[in-house]
Amino acid sequence: MSSEFYTFGPHKISHTGVFYTTQLSFAMVNLRPVAPGHVLICSMREVKRVADLTADEICDLWLTAQKVGGMLECYHKASSLTFTIQDGPESGQTVPHVHIHIVPRKGGDFERNDEIYDAINEKEKELKKNLDLDQERRDRSLEEMAQEADEYRKIL
Amino acid sequence: MSSEFYTFGPHKISHTGVFYTTQLSFAMVNLRPVAPGHVLICSMREVKRVADLTADEICDLWLTAQKVGGMLECYHKASSLTFTIQDGPESGQTVPHVHIHIVPRKGGDFERNDEIYDAINEKEKELKKNLDLDQERRDRSLEEMAQEADEYRKIL
Repeated sequence: MSSEFYTFGPHKISHTGVFYTTQLSFAMVNLRPVAPGHVLICSMREVKRVADLTADEICDLWLTAQKVGGMLECYHKASSLTFTIQDGPESGQTVPHVHIHIVPRKGGDFERNDEIYDAINEKEKELKKNLDLDQERRDRSLEEMAQEADEYRKIL
Repeated sequence: MSSEFYTFGPHKISHTGVFYTTQLSFAMVNLRPVAPGHVLICSMREVKRVADLTADEICDLWLTAQKVGGMLECYHKASSLTFTIQDGPESGQTVPHVHIHIVPRKGGDFERNDEIYDAINEKEKELKKNLDLDQERRDRSLEEMAQEADEYRKIL
């Protein structure tokens, strides 16, 4: 992709935060990660639901998630991964563009294991609020996100 | 598959609860669903982690999840789906065999959206306890599970 921005639902994502792409998918760092290494794998084509993906797209999305997940687990010295798709508004999806959440997991990272999902949901809501508003509300700077993306890009 | 049982980690699953199979994946109803239509999509080969799946296996697993998810959403008159893989013990996986949880979602089905994950985690723990013990501890009868599987089999 030579364009400066990637489409994520109604939002434009700077290429500096995108650390891996294929023809059909892209992987980006998160504005407000719930844990170190929490990233999103998105379909390149803007579609809302998993049902809207072609066979090639769903395969590519998950092959990308598998590759990126392996890198993240190693890089963050984690021992497990959480993969989640909130597919539709009633499952907590706030950005209407298919995306997989990947979160590297370690023993004791959350008090109760399932708190990771509370956190993903809260952050997704915040992400929406945040991207809808001006850039001054961002918790992480573009520079910090670009630096993280650079690290991943080198490894992949 | 002509065998009477399917392998799910250390457990043997009756074919009556398995409602869809491909060469590489199978879909089964749940012993203790957290919501109506909560099912599991498993790799036919017994592997622990997403990283252990071949490209063909991961594609097949997700094409199966896409197909089954669409059927479930329609059958249960839901409007969204939750897809989750707990990949490794630190993410809440208790049965060491790759499986996708699919849960049909409706507005207001859980008081807070993220409670679905608490429920999945609790049920996964119970599933482990339960399958480790004798059959009398089962919450759902084999008949009830077979009946649900039959319904899905007819549609798919």
